[in-house]
Amino acid sequence: MWLHFEMKTDLHFSSDFTEEAEKAFRKAIEDSALLFMKGVPKGVNPDEVGHIEGDPHIEGNRVELEFASGPYTRVHDALFRFRKQVPPVLGKFRMGLREIGISRYTVTMTGSFPEGFKVPELPFIRNAEFSGDSLVMDLEVSAADLENRIPDRLVRLIEEKIEAATYGGKGEHWELIFESGPKPRFSEKDPTAGMIDQGWIKHAPARGQWIFGPPAVQLFRAFETIVMEEIVRPLGFSEMIFPKMIPWEVWMRSGHAKGVYPEIYYICTPKTRDPAYWEDVADYFKVTGEVWIDEIRKRIDGPVGGMCYAQCPPFWPFVQGETLANDCLPIRVFDRSGTSHRYESGGIHGIERVDEFHRIEILWLGTAEQTVELAEQLHHAYHRVFEDILELEWRSARVTPWFMAQEGMVGGEVACGCGSHIGTTDYEAYLPYNESWLEFQNVSINGDKYPKGFNVKIQSGTDCWSGCSGIGLERWTAAFLAQKGLERENWPERVAGLTGEPDSLFKFL
Amino acid sequence: MWLHFEMKTDLHFSSDFTEEAEKAFRKAIEDSALLFMKGVPKGVNPDEVGHIEGDPHIEGNRVELEFASGPYTRVHDALFRFRKQVPPVLGKFRMGLREIGISRYTVTMTGSFPEGFKVPELPFIRNAEFSGDSLVMDLEVSAADLENRIPDRLVRLIEEKIEAATYGGKGEHWELIFESGPKPRFSEKDPTAGMIDQGWIKHAPARGQWIFGPPAVQLFRAFETIVMEEIVRPLGFSEMIFPKMIPWEVWMRSGHAKGVYPEIYYICTPKTRDPAYWEDVADYFKVTGEVWIDEIRKRIDGPVGGMCYAQCPPFWPFVQGETLANDCLPIRVFDRSGTSHRYESGGIHGIERVDEFHRIEILWLGTAEQTVELAEQLHHAYHRVFEDILELEWRSARVTPWFMAQEGMVGGEVACGCGSHIGTTDYEAYLPYNESWLEFQNVSINGDKYPKGFNVKIQSGTDCWSGCSGIGLERWTAAFLAQKGLERENWPERVAGLTGEPDSLFKFL
Repeated sequence: MWLHFEMKTDLHFSSDFTEEAEKAFRKAIEDSALLFMKGVPKGVNPDEVGHIEGDPHIEGNRVELEFASGPYTRVHDALFRFRKQVPPVLGKFRMGLREIGISRYTVTMTGSFPEGFKVPELPFIRNAEFSGDSLVMDLEVSAADLENRIPDRLVRLIEEKIEAATYGGKGEHWELIFESGPKPRFSEKDPTAGMIDQGWIKHAPARGQWIFGPPAVQLFRAFETIVMEEIVRPLGFSEMIFPKMIPWEVWMRSGHAKGVYPEIYYICTPKTRDPAYWEDVADYFKVTGEVWIDEIRKRIDGPVGGMCYAQCPPFWPFVQGETLANDCLPIRVFDRSGTSHRYESGGIHGIERVDEFHRIEILWLGTAEQTVELAEQLHHAYHRVFEDILELEWRSARVTPWFMAQEGMVGGEVACGCGSHIGTTDYEAYLPYNESWLEFQNVSINGDKYPKGFNVKIQSGTDCWSGCSGIGLERWTAAFLAQKGLERENWPERVAGLTGEPDSLFKFL
Repeated sequence: MWLHFEMKTDLHFSSDFTEEAEKAFRKAIEDSALLFMKGVPKGVNPDEVGHIEGDPHIEGNRVELEFASGPYTRVHDALFRFRKQVPPVLGKFRMGLREIGISRYTVTMTGSFPEGFKVPELPFIRNAEFSGDSLVMDLEVSAADLENRIPDRLVRLIEEKIEAATYGGKGEHWELIFESGPKPRFSEKDPTAGMIDQGWIKHAPARGQWIFGPPAVQLFRAFETIVMEEIVRPLGFSEMIFPKMIPWEVWMRSGHAKGVYPEIYYICTPKTRDPAYWEDVADYFKVTGEVWIDEIRKRIDGPVGGMCYAQCPPFWPFVQGETLANDCLPIRVFDRSGTSHRYESGGIHGIERVDEFHRIEILWLGTAEQTVELAEQLHHAYHRVFEDILELEWRSARVTPWFMAQEGMVGGEVACGCGSHIGTTDYEAYLPYNESWLEFQNVSINGDKYPKGFNVKIQSGTDCWSGCSGIGLERWTAAFLAQKGLERENWPERVAGLTGEPDSLFKFL
């Protein structure tokens, strides 16, 4: 991709130029060519390097300067390098640079664009012209935007979109690792329908949401006990409690702010907790029996974030900005303190696909070796649980890393470009009733993604890596009951022992 | 309070009045006086009963009718009673009533208004004039609004506001029941500060939110075990899982929609989960590093409800519309599946006052006798736990029922008017570090409030009552550590045994 930048700036100084000051300033402009060459690889065509074009227009306390560049010392970098020259050159005339206006900024990208390429619509793109192999963008940016590297990030975004469109067709990566082979099956029925019939669960008023009666919770807690006794305790994990209301700050660092928007349950806060401010909203309900949603909408701030989506990001502020002692690694923790929420597609689904779900989240961090080693230990432990304790028909596969999917990135190995250890392994169970495989469990090695995002370091100076593994209790239940049915006598001994007799508390007439 | 209603209606019929039809219709109007007297107590002044005033204006297929009333057979009731007479009277002329327009509706309330009384501001109050002892409201209402009894509920609302203003000065009801007397104290310090110092907890990025490290969770789980072993299991409670995203539908039935608005964390949903719809929002973050909140705001629906506030309302749809068999009562359940969230006042608070907290919610329902009896059993169990196991300095008190507070109702016995058993008992613990008492626990008998709201009946036909009790783990921890300090050697034996040695997992340089 060929890149070209042009920028017109309007510099305001603290006082008018004297003749001598103007002379010194023009000299500085001439000298700037050398300044802009710093760090540029040898052999690069000087046209591709940032430079000041034409004769600057100086009048009173204002200067109009035009910059142009290819990919090297881009116009905004050239501007900020030049700005550093102002105090040494104009200081002796008691002149300072007060303000930088950007009156024009264009980026031209020329090269191979995939079919159907669409120019992003963003507020600082004032105008864009795309002609098949060339994209010219006229940007509306301030000096602060340039310091925030908006143009560079915009160029990177467009390159990513081109990559995505080019490789996107490959779809999700999926590579079988292990297949358990057949196991005794005791059901051909949809377990959700069965649980509803038996009164174990009932659909709650909101979408994708269930109320779990005692027999369903007996099964959840049996699975939880197995996870504690077979996985969490033997592998040395300690319990923590991670927050469940997730502010943007967390998702900005975890990377979820890159793409999770379609599935968030957003959270807004009251503009004030003064009861007088809300009195008429309460009165409206008292008089009409309806909630005054339109009016509430005007009286809330935000969204300030969302409900827990991925369970591990809100752990990270606990270690944010810290350096961990070598001898406390690997850190092994887990959280089971609340719900996760995803805005799933509508329609009728069973408990295998819900908007509100319950998950035990396992998280570890340490050196790359420690992180990979612990993932291996987890795989062995899960293998034993699914084979010997739950006696499931299951398989495992390497898939597109979850964090790439959640950041709206492309699937497939090519786009991943990650080390051979980084990635997600899904565990899938066979559902006889619809002859499909259900992803009911995963283990991920996330590399240095989170430690980088939250600025976590290790004493030894080596890279900090982390991993996580989510155990979805609805998914375990859906997989288990689909294969074993609702009759406890057909359940593997350990599960049947832990649940006990189903607790038939409610009798409805 | 003297009440007077006036209403002008515009009735549209399916065809024009013939002379005969008009005659029959005028006759029906004359006969209506008798119709409107039905159900009115003897001795009431006829002026106070709904009637049709003046001569009706009949032209083509339209009739203008004016109604007036005092508190008996109010104008809208008179209208609907009269409407029932139309088919028998006009049917033979093949005329039907097609539409009812309300061109004017005024309510006058005359009597003693408290100082500072403010007229509610609601969209259907077109104009209101208040002159100290008389309030005249000109309403903009449709026939559907009248069927929804908007004027009656508006009058009731104003009467409630007058009551509230009259009795509001009395403040919260508080009546001591029991006081434990002094217990060994091992701390004079703020436990939150202590836990931060020891690395047990860390403030999370959102307001009133903490991340709990392993030693804090050890204490939470020790308390949870005590609750299970001493209260939940001996008293026969079964575990359920209640939803944690609460749609308006639940709060409309539970009564929370009457007043909980200032403290809700509101939830909004994406207008669509089509990734293309959200692409530019994701792009914006990728380019600016900021979340595009203003744009997200335009692309979300709702609010559709809020995060869990009181923990028991979302249980009720499990039994909504059902009749419970006598022999399954009392139903005893509990939930510990997630977080509760309240928008608390800002500023610096410890874990005793948080926006996000963890609670074991206990809930029971049955006959009034069963409900009261179970509350007694709970009080005994809590008494034993606080006295003998936690060895706390505590007291209990009857207070304004929590549901009245949460519905924005007045405190105090007078306004309550509830039976002697209905109400809330708070448990409070002494905090030596600031010489105050902390409410750390409650037990409530809610009467038939929830069964009525969710339409739950008992086989025997007797009233269904319910109770609930929230065990806040942050509050228990704050109370316990404030009195016993962070040194495990000073903790009562059972607690120290259940927690074990503090798990010092993290070592920061």
